[in-house]
Amino acid sequence: MYTIIKEQIETPALLVDLDVLEKNIELMEAHLKGSKQRLRPHFKTHKSPYIAHLQINAGAKGITCAKLGEAEVLAAAGIKDILIANQVVDPCKIGRLAALANSTRLSVCVDNPHAISALSKAAIECGSTVYVLVEIDVGMDRCGVKTKEEALALAKQITDAEGLVFDGLQAYAGHLCHNPDREAREKGVANAEATVIEAKAFIESNGINVKEVSGSGTGIFDLPGAHEIWTEIQAGSYVFMDTDYNRLGLEFACSLSIMATIINKRPGIAITDAGLKVCCQEMGPPAIKDHPGLSVTSLSEEHGKIRDDNDELEYLQKIEYITSHCCATANLHDHYYCTRNGILEMVLPISGRGKSR
Amino acid sequence: MYTIIKEQIETPALLVDLDVLEKNIELMEAHLKGSKQRLRPHFKTHKSPYIAHLQINAGAKGITCAKLGEAEVLAAAGIKDILIANQVVDPCKIGRLAALANSTRLSVCVDNPHAISALSKAAIECGSTVYVLVEIDVGMDRCGVKTKEEALALAKQITDAEGLVFDGLQAYAGHLCHNPDREAREKGVANAEATVIEAKAFIESNGINVKEVSGSGTGIFDLPGAHEIWTEIQAGSYVFMDTDYNRLGLEFACSLSIMATIINKRPGIAITDAGLKVCCQEMGPPAIKDHPGLSVTSLSEEHGKIRDDNDELEYLQKIEYITSHCCATANLHDHYYCTRNGILEMVLPISGRGKSR
Repeated sequence: MYTIIKEQIETPALLVDLDVLEKNIELMEAHLKGSKQRLRPHFKTHKSPYIAHLQINAGAKGITCAKLGEAEVLAAAGIKDILIANQVVDPCKIGRLAALANSTRLSVCVDNPHAISALSKAAIECGSTVYVLVEIDVGMDRCGVKTKEEALALAKQITDAEGLVFDGLQAYAGHLCHNPDREAREKGVANAEATVIEAKAFIESNGINVKEVSGSGTGIFDLPGAHEIWTEIQAGSYVFMDTDYNRLGLEFACSLSIMATIINKRPGIAITDAGLKVCCQEMGPPAIKDHPGLSVTSLSEEHGKIRDDNDELEYLQKIEYITSHCCATANLHDHYYCTRNGILEMVLPISGRGKSR
Repeated sequence: MYTIIKEQIETPALLVDLDVLEKNIELMEAHLKGSKQRLRPHFKTHKSPYIAHLQINAGAKGITCAKLGEAEVLAAAGIKDILIANQVVDPCKIGRLAALANSTRLSVCVDNPHAISALSKAAIECGSTVYVLVEIDVGMDRCGVKTKEEALALAKQITDAEGLVFDGLQAYAGHLCHNPDREAREKGVANAEATVIEAKAFIESNGINVKEVSGSGTGIFDLPGAHEIWTEIQAGSYVFMDTDYNRLGLEFACSLSIMATIINKRPGIAITDAGLKVCCQEMGPPAIKDHPGLSVTSLSEEHGKIRDDNDELEYLQKIEYITSHCCATANLHDHYYCTRNGILEMVLPISGRGKSR
C-alpha cells in the first residue's frame, strides 16, 4: 500500500528508468573493455553525483564536466578525478579552481598563455597541483589552438610552470557527434585523429610526453579512428539518450522521459501540462513514448499540443515525452523521479542544475 | 571599497537593471490609468515575489501565474490575490489548490465540468473558497471552450457548486502577442473581443454576472479593442522585454541581460562562456547589448560564438546578451543580479524557477 506507481507522480515529472540507465552504463563499459580507451563520462548530461558514482563504480576513470561550478558539486560528492573540459579564464574562477584542486584531482583545459600563468600563480598560492590539458581545435571552431606550434608552446609553458602538470591534449569533436550519417562521422573522426596525431608527435618530438588525449562523445565513441589515439572518452548522452541521438542507431536505449498529463482533450487534439519550461525543443519537438503515431506539434511555455487524429489519448491520461536534447532538458529540472518496473524507487536531486559558473 | 561594480560579477550572470525595470512597471501603470483595465501581471516572466510586490505596490490588483507551484511561491511571499491562468485537473493538485485558497484569494481557470466537480469537492473538504474563470478559446486553439453554450453550461455549474465563486472569463490571445504587424494584432484583438462580447452577453442574458474578463498581454495591452471588454491585463514580458518583443516598437526598454565573458578571441571570432543553458534561443540567438554590429552566430550548451569582423571585442571582456525570450531565459537561472548605474544592489532569488507543477 506504500508503493508509488509511476502514474501517481505529479506532472510534469522528469523520469529515469533505472534498469535502462544501468544497462546503458554497462553497455558503454563493455564496449570499451580491452581497448586503450577509458571512459570519463560527461556530467553535463545528468548533473547528478549519484549517477556519476554509478559510472565510476562501473569502471569510469573519472568524470568530465563543463563548468567549474559542476566540478565543485562533484568534488563535494566525493568524486576524486574531475576534468573541466573547458577554458576557465576569469581571475575569480581561477582562484576557486586552484583551491578546489586541494580536495580532488582536478584537470582543466587551456588554449592561451595568460590562463596558464594565472593558473600557476593560483596553484602556488593555494599550495595545490592543477593538471592541464592543451585544447586543440579538431573542427568545432570554438575554443582550442589551431596549430601544433601553438600546442607545443603551451605544453612547454605548462611543463615549466610551478603548480601545474601537463597531462596531454583535449580534442573534442562535438560537431561530429550528431551527424546521422555514419560514414560522415567516420571521415570526420579520421580527420580529427590526423590533427591529434600530428600535434602529439610534434610535442613528443620536443621531449614532452603527451599522456592523455581526451575527447570523443556518444555519437562517435565507437569510432575511435584507426589509431585509437584517444585515451579518454567523454561521452555524456549515452546514459539518457534522446530523439536526436536515436537517429544514429546506437545500442543505447532511452532512459529519460518527461511525464505529462492530458489537461484538455477534444477531437484530433490533446493538450498537455508540459511545455518548453520542462522540455528543451532545441533539436525539435519531443516524441511521445509508446505512441509512435502521435506527434507534438508545438510546445508553449507550460503546454504541449499533440495531434491525435485517431483520438488515442484521453483526458487525464499520463503520457511521456522523449526530448530531442537530454542535456538541456535535465538542466530545467530539480529532481529525477527514478523508477524501476513502473514503481518509484528514488527522487534524485539534480545537484548540478544551473551550475553554469 | 565595498562597492561591487557590474563587471566584477562572475559570469554567466543574469542581470536586471533596476532603473529600467522600475520605469517599465511605471509606464504600464501610467498607460492603464483612467481605463477600465487593471493590471494583473504575469509571474511566469520573472518568477520573483520581490518583483511581484513592486508591481502590486505600483498599482497591480493581483498577480497571474501559470502553475499551482508558482501560486504556492506567491502565497508564501504574502501575495493576497493570485490567478492561476491555466487548467488544474490532477486530483492531487486540486487538493493542493483548494488548501492554498485558505491563505490567499485564489482563482483558477476551467474548461471542463469534471474539473469543476473536483474543485468544489476539494474546496468543501478544505473549507475554502475558490474563484473560478471559464476559459474561452479566442484563437490560441490550446485550452478553453469553443462555444458560448459550453461557456454558459460551465458558468452555471460553477454558480451552483458549493465552495466555488464564478468570477468571469479567461480569454488569453497569446497567439497575437508576438506578431510584429500592429494592424494584424489589432484585427486579431477585434476578433477575440467579438468572441468575448458574445459569450459574456449570452451568459449574462441567462442571469449570471460576468465580473471579470482576464487576458491580454505585453504585445496587445495597448490594443484593448473598441469596447475595452477586458478588465484584467495579464502582461508579463513588459518588465524585462527581449529581442522578440523589441520588434513591436513598444515603449518598454530591456532591463534583462545575460553577462558573459570572452574566453577565446581570435581574428573575426569571439567565444563566450554563456550558452543555451543560460540563454534560451527559442526565438533566435541573443543580440549583444551596445554592440549592434555584432551577432551571436550560435549557442552550444555552455558557449556562445560571436562573429566579430572588426575585432571589437577583447579576451576577458564582459559583454551582455539580450535574449529572444525573457520568460524562458529567467527560468534557467537561480538569481538575478540587480544593478543600478552599474553597481550591484541586490542578489535576488528566482523563487519560482522550475515550479512547473
